[in-house]
Amino acid sequence: MIPIISIVGKSDAGKTTLIEGLLRELKKRGYRIGTVKHDVHGFEVDREGKDSWKHAQAGSDAVVLASSSKICCIKKIDQEIPLEEICESYLWDCDFVLTEGFKRESKQKIEVSRKAVSQELLCQEEDGFLAIVADYDAQARIPQFGLNDYVSLADFIERRIIEMKKDNERNINIKVDGKQVPVNPFVKKIIENVIKAMITSLKECEQAEKIEIVIRMEENK
Amino acid sequence: MIPIISIVGKSDAGKTTLIEGLLRELKKRGYRIGTVKHDVHGFEVDREGKDSWKHAQAGSDAVVLASSSKICCIKKIDQEIPLEEICESYLWDCDFVLTEGFKRESKQKIEVSRKAVSQELLCQEEDGFLAIVADYDAQARIPQFGLNDYVSLADFIERRIIEMKKDNERNINIKVDGKQVPVNPFVKKIIENVIKAMITSLKECEQAEKIEIVIRMEENK
Repeated sequence: MIPIISIVGKSDAGKTTLIEGLLRELKKRGYRIGTVKHDVHGFEVDREGKDSWKHAQAGSDAVVLASSSKICCIKKIDQEIPLEEICESYLWDCDFVLTEGFKRESKQKIEVSRKAVSQELLCQEEDGFLAIVADYDAQARIPQFGLNDYVSLADFIERRIIEMKKDNERNINIKVDGKQVPVNPFVKKIIENVIKAMITSLKECEQAEKIEIVIRMEENK
Repeated sequence: MIPIISIVGKSDAGKTTLIEGLLRELKKRGYRIGTVKHDVHGFEVDREGKDSWKHAQAGSDAVVLASSSKICCIKKIDQEIPLEEICESYLWDCDFVLTEGFKRESKQKIEVSRKAVSQELLCQEEDGFLAIVADYDAQARIPQFGLNDYVSLADFIERRIIEMKKDNERNINIKVDGKQVPVNPFVKKIIENVIKAMITSLKECEQAEKIEIVIRMEENK
C-alpha cells in the first residue's frame, strides 16, 4: 500500500492552503507526490466542444488524453471508490499521497483548524489522528503545528511516511477479483518466495525489484 | 491485454465523428468502453483557481478528483507512455478501447478517409490494418465501410474484439519493474498453475476469476 496522509478540517479551515504549503516544502525534498480531493458536489473538468468531451457525450466510459508531458483520465463510475483503491489504481507511481478531505475513510489524519472558523475539532482522540495544525492552543495530546509551519510539519510527515513505507515494504499484495485478500504472514512468505523463485529464474529478471502478475481464469475449464 | 482498436486518418478526415458514431452504436450493445486521444499539442483540462489546479501548481505530480459518479486523474509525466501501457494502467476496467490517433503505435487500425481531404491513405498494406472507412472506392484488399455506416462497422469491430479477447483470455500477464516479460507458453503454464494452486487454496478465494499479485523486493536482504 502506498502511504496516505489526509488533511481534514471543517469547511474554510484552510485545507487547500495547507496542502499547497506542504506540497511546496515536500517537493523540495525530491518526492513524487499524489493528491486526492474528495468532491462531494461533483466537478466538471472537461470542456464542452473538446474532442474528449465529445467522446464522453457519445458514451465513452473513460476518456484518456495523452501527451508527452501529461496524462488525463476522466472515468464514469457507479459508486464512490474507497480511498485506498483510488490510490492503488491511479497513484501507484507516487511515493505517497496527501488527500484533502476523506475524514471518515482515511487512516492517518492531520486536522487543520482556525479559530475564526471554529475551535471544535472534527477528529476526536482516535486512531490515526496524527497532528493538529491550528492558530490557537488546541490542548490535545498529539503534536500541534502552526498554520504556516510547513517545514516542521513536512518533517513530521516525512518521518511518518518512512515508518509507513517500512511497514509496507516487505509486502506482497494479493487481490482476488479486485479485493485485497488478507493472508497471514507465514502464508504470505510462502507465496512470496515461490513466486520470487519462479520469476527471478526468468531471463533478465534476476534483479527484479517489483513483480506484478495478473491471471484471468479461463471461462470454460 | 485489453483489446485496442485505433481510428486513424489525416487531419480533418473525420476521426472524432467516426468515434462518436461508433461509441453510440457500441454502447447500445452494453460494453464498457474506454477511449484514448493522443494530443500532440498538449492540452489543458484543469481550470485556474480550482483546488485541483492549486494542487498541481504547488507541485502535486498527480491530482485525483473523486466524486460518486466520476474520477479524474491528471498526472505529470516525463515522456510519452506507450499506448498499451496507458490502457493497462488507466482503462483496465473497460471491455475494450478505441483510440483516436496512435497510427504508429497501434496494432489494430481502421483508417477514415474523405475525398474532400485526400484520397491518399496513411496506412499501407500492413499488419493490423483492419478496414477503411471512406466516401470513395479506396480499392483496397481489406473491408471498406461508408462514413455513416456505424452499425456494420460496429458489427465488424465487435467480431474483431471477441477474437482478440479469445487470444488474450488464457493469459497470465507478468511484469517485472514495469516491463512486460515475454515468457514461452510452457513456462507460462507452470507459473500460472503454481500461483492458481496457491491462491485458490486460500479462504474465500476458491472461485477466483482474476488474481493480481504485486511483490516489492526488500531493499536490504
